[in-house]
Amino acid sequence: MATHRIVIVGGGFAGLWATRALRRAPVSILLIDRANHHLFQPLLYQVATAGLSSPDIAAPLRHILRGQENVEVRLATVERVQPDARRVHLDDGSSVDYDTLLLASGATHAYFGHDDWAPFAPGLKTLDDALLLRRRLLLAFEHAEAETDAEKRRAWLSFAIVGGGPTGVELAGTLAEIARHTLRREFRHIDPASARVRLVEAGPRILSSFPELLSAKAQKQLERLGVDVVTGSPVEAIDAQGYRSNGLFVPARTVVWAAGVAASKLARSLGVELDRAGRVPVLPDLTVPGHPEIFVAGDLATVIQKDGKPVPGVAPGAKQMGSYVARVIRDRLAGRPPPPPFRYRDYGNLATIGRMAAVVDVHGLKLSGLFAWWFWLAAHVFFLIGFRNRLSVLINWAIAYWSYQRAARIIIGHKNDDAG
Amino acid sequence: MATHRIVIVGGGFAGLWATRALRRAPVSILLIDRANHHLFQPLLYQVATAGLSSPDIAAPLRHILRGQENVEVRLATVERVQPDARRVHLDDGSSVDYDTLLLASGATHAYFGHDDWAPFAPGLKTLDDALLLRRRLLLAFEHAEAETDAEKRRAWLSFAIVGGGPTGVELAGTLAEIARHTLRREFRHIDPASARVRLVEAGPRILSSFPELLSAKAQKQLERLGVDVVTGSPVEAIDAQGYRSNGLFVPARTVVWAAGVAASKLARSLGVELDRAGRVPVLPDLTVPGHPEIFVAGDLATVIQKDGKPVPGVAPGAKQMGSYVARVIRDRLAGRPPPPPFRYRDYGNLATIGRMAAVVDVHGLKLSGLFAWWFWLAAHVFFLIGFRNRLSVLINWAIAYWSYQRAARIIIGHKNDDAG
Repeated sequence: MATHRIVIVGGGFAGLWATRALRRAPVSILLIDRANHHLFQPLLYQVATAGLSSPDIAAPLRHILRGQENVEVRLATVERVQPDARRVHLDDGSSVDYDTLLLASGATHAYFGHDDWAPFAPGLKTLDDALLLRRRLLLAFEHAEAETDAEKRRAWLSFAIVGGGPTGVELAGTLAEIARHTLRREFRHIDPASARVRLVEAGPRILSSFPELLSAKAQKQLERLGVDVVTGSPVEAIDAQGYRSNGLFVPARTVVWAAGVAASKLARSLGVELDRAGRVPVLPDLTVPGHPEIFVAGDLATVIQKDGKPVPGVAPGAKQMGSYVARVIRDRLAGRPPPPPFRYRDYGNLATIGRMAAVVDVHGLKLSGLFAWWFWLAAHVFFLIGFRNRLSVLINWAIAYWSYQRAARIIIGHKNDDAG
Repeated sequence: MATHRIVIVGGGFAGLWATRALRRAPVSILLIDRANHHLFQPLLYQVATAGLSSPDIAAPLRHILRGQENVEVRLATVERVQPDARRVHLDDGSSVDYDTLLLASGATHAYFGHDDWAPFAPGLKTLDDALLLRRRLLLAFEHAEAETDAEKRRAWLSFAIVGGGPTGVELAGTLAEIARHTLRREFRHIDPASARVRLVEAGPRILSSFPELLSAKAQKQLERLGVDVVTGSPVEAIDAQGYRSNGLFVPARTVVWAAGVAASKLARSLGVELDRAGRVPVLPDLTVPGHPEIFVAGDLATVIQKDGKPVPGVAPGAKQMGSYVARVIRDRLAGRPPPPPFRYRDYGNLATIGRMAAVVDVHGLKLSGLFAWWFWLAAHVFFLIGFRNRLSVLINWAIAYWSYQRAARIIIGHKNDDAG
């Protein structure tokens, strides 16, 4: 009998965890990813805000999996799935057949039908996104320094982060710290501390996935760091000069999109109905209706649990789905009965806000402020893959903590590659 | 009396050392650079070969100079100098007047009239260059892994480094180590160790600035690391498939240019005769003939000393020129007689070859092999600017040394951004 062929699309938390959980299974795995690395996405905002460099939060997939002999890694983009032929088509024109498929290609940022906003309000999903954001944020201060017109200068010193979820909160808090502390004394014509950082949220409160008490605490902490938190403010337009909300135009040369995600377009080729965000509603065993040989996991999947609650789009959810899919596959191949439906184990919810400020909601334990920040720090360093990365991240953070400096304030790429 | 205005173009070794040596002078300095950072160029090849990340070898100019109150830093490109008006013109259309000008905009790689080779054989002068090279080098192995045709696969596993100077030697040695050690066990269809790394030199020996004995030792060490050293082999053509030398076409999908540099084009606007490489032949006090208010230093200058020897284009030379220019300016402003003509103090010549191999020529002391490598390591860590960088570099190197791993094997940028 030929070896069972598994194709896994995406080397994020879901895909990588599934791959590793199949290390002793009698299968042959092809892991396909567009990037050559697994990315520790929860710290991506640190690369965007010049605190960490790319290799600190990324590790080559080949290296992670070099010892797992039933895996082959391929650097490629999957264009579409052909479910009836059990085949995926790659961007280089070739195709690969599978017996079992796991789609875990994640999400990208989405502009809710306003794709024309993209050039003016980049999002944050990949390392390239992070380096673009870093360039824009650092260059805004340079433009302000060179600008002689007071009004234009103010527009360069106005930053808007659209979306009050964890990413928006992290970006806003860190940017305020950069403006107030990191850049102090470095400019001659502007005072970076006069920069305005607005966190613009459409809904009534930021961090809506947290209890209301913690949302309120997070807002207070952000305000103490110098962020203007603007809630109830859906964005209606964005261009190179600023954004409009509630009918009012707000000048801001640098706008960052942290508001919406949409599932990878790959899901469309499955031929099943998707939810509003383009995700695949999967069965309780994470397979696609009508296709028990196709699994979907991570941000690409919508999983409604028995209690009616959806699994949140966070790293632990993706890891758990990945491991679960591996378990279903192993049981099938061994002729065992299937495991019980997937159930998300919620270990809690963390968000960092800035220097020594965070909110934590773990098993009913609600923390905010300095202690929550230490909790957040420990959890993130612990979960970073690879000894080297952990050490390097710790050192960078320790130095940043004492000196207010940010190690990676290096502009890469063309300096004119901005919206202006 | 108005403050004496000094414009310094370029924040490399020459420009930065001049700026710092003027910290107590009664002047107002404008330091203009295209990049926001000072770059420790001697380690740039480590970024290209994925051993270090960009922030390890770069530091923001603003940050370095934040405490020096007579300096203003501007991120801009100088388009041309207008010597009669004592004015420089920037790319944003604005201009700046000076009383004294220091041009230290350095060199870029040059293709000796074959600019059409540039897309197929990128060079290494900036961080963006290094990241492009890193992408090409890492992607070549990915292409080879995906290729099914044996001959095409061999072409992807063939690398040519054109130019046997220090940069070429460093790149070739490190690339051989990556192929033989770092990538071991990570691929399923290719053996990375079968990659051919050719170091192609037009002249009769590599490292021609070193004594012949050390050139020979370096060649032996390179060959032990797995590099094919090809001397007496001027390159006649380069395209996406390979290069031609001595009438013979050699397939190689990845060619790196480490052969020629030319001075920054800015020199042309001075209206004086330049040397063959586009450098400015300066007077013994590093001023431009006919323009005592214009200094040129670093790779942009040709300085012939009393003994007829030119100052080599290395970091210590640039630093010494920068400090010298500052001294001339200080003496002038104080009404003191000028200092004696510039004289290069030669502390020796170092080149690293690869894992535990280097050559050192210091005051007649000639070393090669492991001891030379430790010497090289100590010198480079010592001269890296900034505590954080030094520590991070040391840690990365220590880990690389023990594990053969390279911390920065992360492909950034579009994967199709290659010559193929």
